[in-house]
Amino acid sequence: MRGFRKLTSVAEALQIAMKECSKVELAREIVRTEDALGRVLAEDVVAQHNVPPYDRAAVDGYAIRSEEAFSASQSNPAIFRIVGVAEAGAGRKRIGSGEAVEIYTGAALPDGADAVAMVEECEREGNELRVLRSVPKYGNVSRCGEDIKRGDAVLRKGHVLKAWDIGILLSIRMREVSVSPRLKVAVLSTGSELVEISDPRALDEDSLVDTTRPMIKALLSQSGCDLVDGGIINDDLEEIRDRLSSLAEEAEIVITIGGTSVGGKDLVPEVLDGVQDSRLIFHGIAAKPGKPMGFGVYRGKPLFMLPGYPVSALVGYESVVKPVIASLTGLPIRERQKVKARISRRVPTTPGVRHFLRVALERDGDGFLAKPIALTGSGLLSSLAKADGLVIVGEDREGLEEGEIVEVEILGD
Amino acid sequence: MRGFRKLTSVAEALQIAMKECSKVELAREIVRTEDALGRVLAEDVVAQHNVPPYDRAAVDGYAIRSEEAFSASQSNPAIFRIVGVAEAGAGRKRIGSGEAVEIYTGAALPDGADAVAMVEECEREGNELRVLRSVPKYGNVSRCGEDIKRGDAVLRKGHVLKAWDIGILLSIRMREVSVSPRLKVAVLSTGSELVEISDPRALDEDSLVDTTRPMIKALLSQSGCDLVDGGIINDDLEEIRDRLSSLAEEAEIVITIGGTSVGGKDLVPEVLDGVQDSRLIFHGIAAKPGKPMGFGVYRGKPLFMLPGYPVSALVGYESVVKPVIASLTGLPIRERQKVKARISRRVPTTPGVRHFLRVALERDGDGFLAKPIALTGSGLLSSLAKADGLVIVGEDREGLEEGEIVEVEILGD
Repeated sequence: MRGFRKLTSVAEALQIAMKECSKVELAREIVRTEDALGRVLAEDVVAQHNVPPYDRAAVDGYAIRSEEAFSASQSNPAIFRIVGVAEAGAGRKRIGSGEAVEIYTGAALPDGADAVAMVEECEREGNELRVLRSVPKYGNVSRCGEDIKRGDAVLRKGHVLKAWDIGILLSIRMREVSVSPRLKVAVLSTGSELVEISDPRALDEDSLVDTTRPMIKALLSQSGCDLVDGGIINDDLEEIRDRLSSLAEEAEIVITIGGTSVGGKDLVPEVLDGVQDSRLIFHGIAAKPGKPMGFGVYRGKPLFMLPGYPVSALVGYESVVKPVIASLTGLPIRERQKVKARISRRVPTTPGVRHFLRVALERDGDGFLAKPIALTGSGLLSSLAKADGLVIVGEDREGLEEGEIVEVEILGD
Repeated sequence: MRGFRKLTSVAEALQIAMKECSKVELAREIVRTEDALGRVLAEDVVAQHNVPPYDRAAVDGYAIRSEEAFSASQSNPAIFRIVGVAEAGAGRKRIGSGEAVEIYTGAALPDGADAVAMVEECEREGNELRVLRSVPKYGNVSRCGEDIKRGDAVLRKGHVLKAWDIGILLSIRMREVSVSPRLKVAVLSTGSELVEISDPRALDEDSLVDTTRPMIKALLSQSGCDLVDGGIINDDLEEIRDRLSSLAEEAEIVITIGGTSVGGKDLVPEVLDGVQDSRLIFHGIAAKPGKPMGFGVYRGKPLFMLPGYPVSALVGYESVVKPVIASLTGLPIRERQKVKARISRRVPTTPGVRHFLRVALERDGDGFLAKPIALTGSGLLSSLAKADGLVIVGEDREGLEEGEIVEVEILGD
């Protein structure tokens, strides 16, 4: 039985993976604007059209020439002859001197008109209109290009498209938009003992269902990645190498799950030996849980080796894989909500190792009490169902004192 | 030209819609556990299996009978004969008196053994094992059911499934899970003047592209709804009624966009007149922008009538539709991050009306300055691209004073 030669700190592990993954190059992808929600703009968007595309009424009322109502007032109304109606989308009208057009919000201002008298400031009898108040040139008119001018830089490269951005892009008549492609990530479980939940053997009490890979797949889809599912592979060096080689061709990043510990059959770090363009960069991180994580390059592609135990795999994913993916995709990580709480008991930790403590929160006067969840192994997924939050204890600490105030990250998702 | 008879307050509008929509009944849906990320549990989950399913090694070492190493120490080691190796998934071994089995983390404890001596506390020579320290009964063993016991309530009805919950459900061998179905929401734009972005006419400067419906569709998909797209329909009472009738059959909730103002062609509230099981409940809310919003029932289905102008529609969606959907689906609304800021100038508002102010944020010493974005109409989508946040001015105010401290909701999505 072997041991980890050296543990890499979480911060250094992240830095190494970040640097290696910065070589990943993503092309561009053109998508329909209506399908672009949540995607990352691959280039600046410059408006090719004015919004509004023409002068239009900002209120309901009557389109007139403003100079002809210059001195209009209650006692001295300006008189016009109504020659038609302008409604949104109904085509442009025209007025001559002394004429007015009934107009509705959004309709194009008739040629010859330069203002809209509000309906509340007019009197009408048949086709005769009395305007009771003067209105300035372009009064109650939304000017052409007032919202967005042709040539305006509307949205910047790297912007993550929100629901209203889709409206904005359509308003400047963009049918398609250039976005960063989704990152393709391949996921593979290793372990001759594992079965898929869909396998009939999964109902035997003696079988071990693969739970970590489906969890990591769910996390990757939350991170906005496209998945290449490599399934489960036996603990066999050649089988693992074959599968990894085909996954490395298909995906930008490869993740293996399991086989990273230092037990008898833990082969994953070994598979890199002697393979072209492949090397192990670190194996073992100073995290508890999460220690048996590795990272390297396989046939030129970044390879994250996550431990098989779900909570350990989760720590590796959250601390290293997720920030790397966010940096590559440009999609922000949603920060967890944080609260301060008093820790309910003394918790010893190992200096030099980052500890991830699952806690239940209880109301405690005005504040919260954080109760560490008793744990006997990193396999214990139920600790996450029972936990309300996570306390991260830094490498500089030797433990938490009872009653100490800690920051708790709420486990929202 | 008509006016709104009465404006309903935002709070009352929400209350009315909430009450009416509480009649919507959602059935259950069975989905594959691996596809259940983000779904809402329709029933409590009770474990039918133990996790771990059997006693297993929590460390690498040697499985023994603890009583046979009762007084073991450096100077007085207990001696065993190694009779085999136990690895995860390799089937259960058996030991007799004086025997030990080499065992790896996760492997089933052999029959006859009740503890694991850690590899660090043993010496081995060929098949002879010297255990240098006593180990208690079940020492270094993860007991059957220690993580989850058969019969345990693991997750509760209404719980929104996170990535690790998928792992938990699979660990208790659940292939499928009963969840609330997605809410089916139909969306329809009205307006003879509107064209789809895919329509060749969309490139004419005089055409009006439908931007609000794609925005609302994006918002609905963010709210976890299934969409029924009703397209664009002309300003014709009978055409609108026909389309609404078929949408009301297909969907649980119907949303119309446009035609809610009080201009000449604003027909939507009228379509409910004289139709069976249909009534207008309110029309016009005390919001700026967002006033021309309506709500009613069409052939028994809740009908939200949003204004055509995108920013108005967005206010109606956020203030009324979104909370109703969250309440029906059980999916939480992600609260926007909030910051305090000083408002840069006086902003007059109308008492009794809730104002939604878009602001740009600037650093200002230790804090932020919120600069209201100059607006001339509720059509101005670009105000949202320029805005960093939203300030909501309550109905009890007559405006904001220059320099007043306000709460700004950051427009993250």
